[in-house]
Amino acid sequence: MFNAKVKAEVLKNIIEAASPLVNEIKLNIKPDGISFRAVDSAHVAMIDLNLNSKAFEEYKADEMELGIDLDKLNGILRLASPNDTVSLEYDEETHRLIIRIGNLVRKMGLIDTAGMPDPKVPNLNLPSKVILKSNELSQGIKASQAISDHIALLVDANGFELYAEGDTDVVNLRLPKDLLSKLDAPQKCKSLFSIDYFSSMIKPVKDEEVTIFLGNDNPIKLEFDFADKNGHVTYLLAPRIESE
Amino acid sequence: MFNAKVKAEVLKNIIEAASPLVNEIKLNIKPDGISFRAVDSAHVAMIDLNLNSKAFEEYKADEMELGIDLDKLNGILRLASPNDTVSLEYDEETHRLIIRIGNLVRKMGLIDTAGMPDPKVPNLNLPSKVILKSNELSQGIKASQAISDHIALLVDANGFELYAEGDTDVVNLRLPKDLLSKLDAPQKCKSLFSIDYFSSMIKPVKDEEVTIFLGNDNPIKLEFDFADKNGHVTYLLAPRIESE
Amino acid sequence: MFNAKVKAEVLKNIIEAASPLVNEIKLNIKPDGISFRAVDSAHVAMIDLNLNSKAFEEYKADEMELGIDLDKLNGILRLASPNDTVSLEYDEETHRLIIRIGNLVRKMGLIDTAGMPDPKVPNLNLPSKVILKSNELSQGIKASQAISDHIALLVDANGFELYAEGDTDVVNLRLPKDLLSKLDAPQKCKSLFSIDYFSSMIKPVKDEEVTIFLGNDNPIKLEFDFADKNGHVTYLLAPRIESE
Repeated sequence: MFNAKVKAEVLKNIIEAASPLVNEIKLNIKPDGISFRAVDSAHVAMIDLNLNSKAFEEYKADEMELGIDLDKLNGILRLASPNDTVSLEYDEETHRLIIRIGNLVRKMGLIDTAGMPDPKVPNLNLPSKVILKSNELSQGIKASQAISDHIALLVDANGFELYAEGDTDVVNLRLPKDLLSKLDAPQKCKSLFSIDYFSSMIKPVKDEEVTIFLGNDNPIKLEFDFADKNGHVTYLLAPRIESE
Repeated sequence: MFNAKVKAEVLKNIIEAASPLVNEIKLNIKPDGISFRAVDSAHVAMIDLNLNSKAFEEYKADEMELGIDLDKLNGILRLASPNDTVSLEYDEETHRLIIRIGNLVRKMGLIDTAGMPDPKVPNLNLPSKVILKSNELSQGIKASQAISDHIALLVDANGFELYAEGDTDVVNLRLPKDLLSKLDAPQKCKSLFSIDYFSSMIKPVKDEEVTIFLGNDNPIKLEFDFADKNGHVTYLLAPRIESE
Repeated sequence: MFNAKVKAEVLKNIIEAASPLVNEIKLNIKPDGISFRAVDSAHVAMIDLNLNSKAFEEYKADEMELGIDLDKLNGILRLASPNDTVSLEYDEETHRLIIRIGNLVRKMGLIDTAGMPDPKVPNLNLPSKVILKSNELSQGIKASQAISDHIALLVDANGFELYAEGDTDVVNLRLPKDLLSKLDAPQKCKSLFSIDYFSSMIKPVKDEEVTIFLGNDNPIKLEFDFADKNGHVTYLLAPRIESE
């Protein structure tokens, strides 16, 4: 059984977070909330998303898996305003998700989850942690996209830095310690990342705070909350190796 | 003689109503108002539009026909704000329509109406009538477009229903009697229609009420007012036959 | 040395004015302000732009030339809101322009100005002068673009007129003397111009006044201010010769 009601906005947030990486997700339904984990086709980035049942207006669920086509769900949610309540119900007989928005009933076919992987979260040693507003970061990424396809992220005891270099041009965004919400940097860390991927991961954050864990030539871990802190997204992104 | 002044908005409404079906219209000018009737090139849909002279700020006209290129007129009206007064004058000598918007004078060549047909309105027996807000209908159509190219419309004593079915997905919009402005259904009626056509006919309605006449595997008649009820549009749309 | 601070809006105005004609400019920096002059690749139109140092929040400069790629600068300014302060600094060592927006530092490579021409302003005898609001003019140009690729501009003692003629259609915008801010027309003048070029020159004017100097089958000179009258743009546009 899965029977839930939630603001359309919360479902839209989920799609925004997942769709840059994957087209389909295996949604894990449990009595205390929903979650999924997915890896992009190039195996460069991973998303791990949890949404507590408290984010829902109503929530009743047994344990089950639902295979969701994100494009299709997105098209359905476009029929709702962000503040509309969307009702979700799993129809066992027809193996469909019944979605209700106002007087509209939309029965959505589900994907077979048999072949869908359960990615494992790798063990990572990421010594530096920084918490910052996402809008500064977004500006730095937009500036970098014009001149390069990768950025360097650096953390040391004095602050956070984003750096990109093109043939003739340079982008540098330096946020000293006092402009950061939190800085925990026992050592200097630096890693390179694809701008396209990193940009996709920052876009869903809106104007909130984002937590970044960084190592040396190691993946980045990026975390943020949504749905009044009842939802949580963790991204992992593999580093690019500097070519000399 | 044709000499009239009207808010740009009213002319824009006319173009919105006609342009999904035809590129050119034969506008019938009479002392008490203007009208036209047109059938789309596939002979699936008809529009019949009337605009009373009361919709105009000034209106003086003899009986005549003007062949109008809707794209061209639309381009000219884009130069006006909805609330601007547009002056229309027929120039007999050059066979042009002189359109004035502020200090701008635009002389528009007219189309020869000789070859343009005068479609007859077919005799139809459509027993069911329902009046409803167009916005619910629009949402149902948008939802249906994603999964099919046709919809079923149903009316019975309990309410109105829109239904579409794709390979795996279903859309259902049920408006019970108390959500309708009026319901007059002596018998159950059901007909299928092309979504593209039906969508085109709902788009110009904005947030007003629309009256629908429905039969069994019969055309649909759809009516709505504009220009403070001085304008009236009737659409007819042929049914699609269900393939078994 | 070049070290200046200015609202992003002012720099955006410069790019809007120049980019319809050229992709690169040779910016002349002087102690009292900046300026450039450029001719489009077809040698039909010229821009001459001056911006007084008073338009800047801070300004310190020796005489020098900077070769600017306008697309690149435009991309950087998109990172700033119109009201943001942008800091500009010339870095002699690396021959780059260092642009600072908030915490973001963007080092932009400069173009070699060696091959860039210094166009001369031709001697022109343009007897008529008219000052008018640009929005009426814009409407006339938009209307004309739909029916022709050139317009006639006329000035006589009674007013200003814009005229375009297509195969069947005519556009006419007549602004009598009392609708003009100023009219100085010792003789009747008429010249033809390319609509595309003329449209590009009107677009950056926004809702301000524009001064036009006109002759008979002669170029047009078009002038307007920006940045609280601390900036001034002069356009010259060669006439099209009427084919009979």
